[in-house]
Amino acid sequence: MPKSSPRSLLRVRKSSTRTKKMPRAKKVRRDPILLTPGPLTTTMATKAAMLRDWGSRDATFIAINARVRDRLRAIVNASDTHVTVPVQGSGTFAVEAAIGTLLPRNGKALVLVNGAYGKRMCKILDYIGRAYSAYETAEDTPPDPAEVDRRLAADPSLTHVLMIHCETTSGLLNPVNDVARIAKARGRALLLDSMSAFGAIPLDLKATPCDAVMASSNKNLEGVPGMGFVIVRTEALKAAKGNAHSLSLDLYDQWQAMEANKQWRFTPPIHVIVALDKAIEQFDKAGGVKGRNARYASNCRTLVEGMRKMGFVTLLPDKLQAPIIVTFRMPKDPNFKFERFYNLLKDQGYVIYPGKLTVADSFRMGCIGAIGQREMRGALAAVRSALRELRVKSGAP
Amino acid sequence: MPKSSPRSLLRVRKSSTRTKKMPRAKKVRRDPILLTPGPLTTTMATKAAMLRDWGSRDATFIAINARVRDRLRAIVNASDTHVTVPVQGSGTFAVEAAIGTLLPRNGKALVLVNGAYGKRMCKILDYIGRAYSAYETAEDTPPDPAEVDRRLAADPSLTHVLMIHCETTSGLLNPVNDVARIAKARGRALLLDSMSAFGAIPLDLKATPCDAVMASSNKNLEGVPGMGFVIVRTEALKAAKGNAHSLSLDLYDQWQAMEANKQWRFTPPIHVIVALDKAIEQFDKAGGVKGRNARYASNCRTLVEGMRKMGFVTLLPDKLQAPIIVTFRMPKDPNFKFERFYNLLKDQGYVIYPGKLTVADSFRMGCIGAIGQREMRGALAAVRSALRELRVKSGAP
Repeated sequence: MPKSSPRSLLRVRKSSTRTKKMPRAKKVRRDPILLTPGPLTTTMATKAAMLRDWGSRDATFIAINARVRDRLRAIVNASDTHVTVPVQGSGTFAVEAAIGTLLPRNGKALVLVNGAYGKRMCKILDYIGRAYSAYETAEDTPPDPAEVDRRLAADPSLTHVLMIHCETTSGLLNPVNDVARIAKARGRALLLDSMSAFGAIPLDLKATPCDAVMASSNKNLEGVPGMGFVIVRTEALKAAKGNAHSLSLDLYDQWQAMEANKQWRFTPPIHVIVALDKAIEQFDKAGGVKGRNARYASNCRTLVEGMRKMGFVTLLPDKLQAPIIVTFRMPKDPNFKFERFYNLLKDQGYVIYPGKLTVADSFRMGCIGAIGQREMRGALAAVRSALRELRVKSGAP
Repeated sequence: MPKSSPRSLLRVRKSSTRTKKMPRAKKVRRDPILLTPGPLTTTMATKAAMLRDWGSRDATFIAINARVRDRLRAIVNASDTHVTVPVQGSGTFAVEAAIGTLLPRNGKALVLVNGAYGKRMCKILDYIGRAYSAYETAEDTPPDPAEVDRRLAADPSLTHVLMIHCETTSGLLNPVNDVARIAKARGRALLLDSMSAFGAIPLDLKATPCDAVMASSNKNLEGVPGMGFVIVRTEALKAAKGNAHSLSLDLYDQWQAMEANKQWRFTPPIHVIVALDKAIEQFDKAGGVKGRNARYASNCRTLVEGMRKMGFVTLLPDKLQAPIIVTFRMPKDPNFKFERFYNLLKDQGYVIYPGKLTVADSFRMGCIGAIGQREMRGALAAVRSALRELRVKSGAP
């Protein structure tokens, strides 16, 4: 834990910042690099924005809040059609808020499921008592747009399509553009859980119409966790009064309050928002979605090529792989014990992520966060060292 | 905004820390002192705990999380009877989660209302469709325990009593001990919204039985906002499976997941939790509830005495006033314009809070946060200066 003396604050700063220009201080304990789907490694500039206290109803904070809301919808080219409605909590809170607010009580959802996050949308619908039908494919298989079209044609009671942009369970990129086109042609609304894609996978709501895009502060925007947000088509939101099943998660009510006085209805996670504002400033300077996508894609290539050289096999073929998080099949060598592997990597300063698949035993490594080539190569060296320590010759499954 | 160079980080630190031992750096812009009901002024040690990134499923973070949960229930002497279930979001999220999880769908609540937060509990009940009856008193009037007793006797369908510990609308301390005794004698469960009282007003769940106590990270514990928590009687929680109206706000499900692997179901507000851990460490060192109560009571006395000398009148008599936030009636002098008064104080580094009363025009000043006598005297000097500037001779209403 950082001590409270100025000197130790500095030390923490030096050890955690990952800009290329700053030489790494030797023999200083580093924070581990998070190779996870988020929360992830953020820059020190982002974290340092949290070193102040702000009044939640004060003009200075309100201006920051307005800027964040404006910037978020601009990222998906929706400044003239949508509003950003933030919600306290994790991404799931934003997903539940979007579904509860936008799916009318007499509506019915077609949910595209190929992993844990698609299943979670079904669980939310069970909780809030709204009708749905699930179109489920295997965890390594995207939904077939033609099948989506058939199902929408066959069931006129379906009012909404719910889908996951990048399914973090596997790392798979779902065919959002095709599904959005079909939903629009069939006159149905699309609610897109873009949690781990937002900001890194290009999305233009003019070309890919969505009534709502849900995401959070702590993924590709590289903020800290504590806030979700929904970018909602204004006309759809206007029609959503009275739908919500929850006061805390009522996006309509939250929006109305913000329209009136720019304030959150209930205490906002101020430090998280101010950090997100700082993170978005860096996001813009680094080239926005294009810049972020390029860095993550390069991280992903380095990771996958390096792991393949050691025999590891990815769950997905490259064309389905989003440059967000990569699922590797568990090696078959009996000397490979995942928990020891995890700890050996952690001891070297890299935190990876357990698998969540039901189809195959696996583990995951993320490519996102304030990390670059140096960290990816460092992670590969750590994996090599861990395999030696475990006396595992190949990562082949 | 803090720049990213080490020197500017230091400067921010110096300017914001409020420990007595540290001489104030002259001519350095200070952060404003927040005289609000929270979010409030926190110590730099608490904020500096956020300068690191942690994996949400990593053992180091999990241990911090377990420690925070243990410490919170110990504060109300409930370590052997209750569990702490944290919830992402603001205090209202914790209140809604507690009501939705603990009040069965066929239950009925008696809600004691004497301000905005009591009304908010009714609004939550409207949203989630649970039966209730409200016992409302004026904003400056505590409920009569004998009347609570009569109502519980008259309506056997009432299963739960819902009340606010300190009603932030006015600053009034409600008669929790009397109501808890009566509820217990009548065999009804008490759910206590202790948001702005927890940690500063003594509460011992052995003497004052509650099925649930709801509070948040950013009040008297002096953490940053982003997390609520509910201290729930374990046996009551065991019986609550299937009650919740919301996946995100299901305390039973959250608890079950934490029992299984100590992890949050959904991404936790990691930096907020780590800051709260650091804040609780300081809370303990400063004498726990007793120490905090003494400092806040002393802050409150200084504030009220100083304001009265300038002619201001408090809404409440001293015996009903909690040492948390003080409501002052608006001065009658026509030169007194609240918005200008607010800005003149802000320019001098003090942020106060608008009123929320319906019974009288008013404003509020808080006594809580990492502030002491120096800040209270500074605030009084700023008020004097603002009155001079406004050519207001007396604060009398």
